[in-house]
Amino acid sequence: MPLSKERFQACYRLTGDRHEAFRKAKDICLEQTVEFPEELVPDGLIRDTVVGRIESFRRTGKDAHEARISYAAEIVGGELTQLINVLFGNISIKPGIRLERIELPDSLLKHFPGPRWGVPGLRKLFRAPKRPLLCTAIKPLGLSAAKLAEMTFRFGLGGIDIIKDDHGLANQSYALFRDRVKGCSRAAREASRQTGRPCVYAPHVSAPHPKMVERALLAWREGAGALLVSPGLRGFGMLEYLSCATHLPILAHPAFLGTYVLNPESGVSHRVLFGQMARLAGADATIFPNFGGRFSFSKEECLEIASGAGGKMGKMAPIFPAPGGGMSLDRVPEMLRFYGRDVLFLVGGGLFKDGPDLTANARRFRQMVGG
Amino acid sequence: MPLSKERFQACYRLTGDRHEAFRKAKDICLEQTVEFPEELVPDGLIRDTVVGRIESFRRTGKDAHEARISYAAEIVGGELTQLINVLFGNISIKPGIRLERIELPDSLLKHFPGPRWGVPGLRKLFRAPKRPLLCTAIKPLGLSAAKLAEMTFRFGLGGIDIIKDDHGLANQSYALFRDRVKGCSRAAREASRQTGRPCVYAPHVSAPHPKMVERALLAWREGAGALLVSPGLRGFGMLEYLSCATHLPILAHPAFLGTYVLNPESGVSHRVLFGQMARLAGADATIFPNFGGRFSFSKEECLEIASGAGGKMGKMAPIFPAPGGGMSLDRVPEMLRFYGRDVLFLVGGGLFKDGPDLTANARRFRQMVGG
Repeated sequence: MPLSKERFQACYRLTGDRHEAFRKAKDICLEQTVEFPEELVPDGLIRDTVVGRIESFRRTGKDAHEARISYAAEIVGGELTQLINVLFGNISIKPGIRLERIELPDSLLKHFPGPRWGVPGLRKLFRAPKRPLLCTAIKPLGLSAAKLAEMTFRFGLGGIDIIKDDHGLANQSYALFRDRVKGCSRAAREASRQTGRPCVYAPHVSAPHPKMVERALLAWREGAGALLVSPGLRGFGMLEYLSCATHLPILAHPAFLGTYVLNPESGVSHRVLFGQMARLAGADATIFPNFGGRFSFSKEECLEIASGAGGKMGKMAPIFPAPGGGMSLDRVPEMLRFYGRDVLFLVGGGLFKDGPDLTANARRFRQMVGG
Repeated sequence: MPLSKERFQACYRLTGDRHEAFRKAKDICLEQTVEFPEELVPDGLIRDTVVGRIESFRRTGKDAHEARISYAAEIVGGELTQLINVLFGNISIKPGIRLERIELPDSLLKHFPGPRWGVPGLRKLFRAPKRPLLCTAIKPLGLSAAKLAEMTFRFGLGGIDIIKDDHGLANQSYALFRDRVKGCSRAAREASRQTGRPCVYAPHVSAPHPKMVERALLAWREGAGALLVSPGLRGFGMLEYLSCATHLPILAHPAFLGTYVLNPESGVSHRVLFGQMARLAGADATIFPNFGGRFSFSKEECLEIASGAGGKMGKMAPIFPAPGGGMSLDRVPEMLRFYGRDVLFLVGGGLFKDGPDLTANARRFRQMVGG
């Protein structure tokens, strides 16, 4: 079988002076591929092809360098989990290395389904050719399924496109998944019938295997129109499957992923983790905490995510950046200027704060985006 | 349905002065449960029970405090993914918070399978009532399945208990999973037949869904005696399933998990992540980089992992700490003194470095642990 000669590229930020950073770059080439002492690496295919290759190396700041390393596409074996493993598996354990950017050739991209809907698909689904899409969350944990369904209906009546579970809703006795998914899916359909506008409910399906797949399929059967998935809890390799298996739009939630981006000297960049990886795995929108909310992402980091979600990646459709996390309605104009119109606004608690009439609050939200 | 009144506890290290750290503690109580502005939290069950509760708060150092927060067992819904979500889901995105310790009551522990084999089971399986267990890895990536099988046989002949895939082996064209698992399982059996000692092969089964389950079941059918699983790539919720579904011993690999422990001010402690979570999910041994190898864990951090793997957790069996990552045979005596005998030594590349006769190297390794 002829081996592909194609290679893909990863850029790493390396902490340290030139000598130390270059040593780290050489180490990555071995650690992420053969995991073998250099002197023992067999000559031929393995040394020439399998081992990573430093394509460029430059100083980017005080005690900071950047190495661009290429890997043989073949070592990914066409699988997302192994791609992540090659990009950052073992070196996640080594300090002073951060995965900043990735560039994948078409021959590798073709192995990944990417978003089934993406920006164009969701725009068609919600009959929203230009405006931002709107999302809110039903909460708090502890309410009954009936109360959550009623809340879904009220938000839907006000014109919210996607009404998602709070990501803390699983299968607690307060509102079992089965009851919730039935009630809330029905409520979203009824709201949609009354307004004449599309409106979907997105249950949180993250759970241990095999319950996650069962819940996603149950959600599909019950007419939930989208899924909320936390790849930090169950891996990007499960998100990928659900996108393929259910045909439902997928919102990726950042739970348990934050640690990767918090330290600028280690982990994975905002662009790669919340933008490119989520998109490769098949998310249609990627939720992240907006700047200026109750989390700490900077404007620059949010733009990075938007550019990973929307920038060129072969033929893969762009996906919606979905900034949330403590947003309030009065920030919508500022966010519109910042993100442009290809954005999915997630206002959760902020929509409750605006007064007890959830439908009126939702309508105001919808009017603010020209909807 | 009567709700359990039981609560479980999590200790967080909080960066900041007393005022800031206490604010963080109060924030965790809301963020990890109701994710709702405090003034909107409904009175009664939700405010009294669902919201997290600060049980204690103390200064632990300059700009460092520790809060012990309790959560209602009910909000976990009996699921590992949701336990992780409550412990550290959203606050993973907030700087200056580290999950240091967890304490789970029996009523919660009973929902998790824990290790099927653990230390007592593996000791029986390998007829090793007292000595450390031995593990090595077949590598490098790029070799054919036939060569990897031959290597498995040679290590087995020398008395290695578990011969695992390098974690970079997936389903690459060099050695397809199916070919590798057939060849290496057979090789380990043949070695065992010749030595009269148990010897198993542990293929790396991490893959996107549904391939991971298929591979684990194929491995089981082909007579592989254990599985190598990377929860960083596919989640602890999949590890749990494989332990239940295959009855095979599971080695947990730390790929893509390192970032959680690297920064002492954020993420999750070594004890919780590599010790307690791996054990809760059903790993029988937890692989981590030993101090003084090519990674950077300290002696203290390694002891933390060993204590999470072996300390009391209800009726859950202890599991083997499996230090590896650049170990060499000359360090075995020091590691024996450090870890005691309840340890699984993983020497990979170091066993190749000792000369071209892999069987002789493996024998020397075995003799060093009194085997």
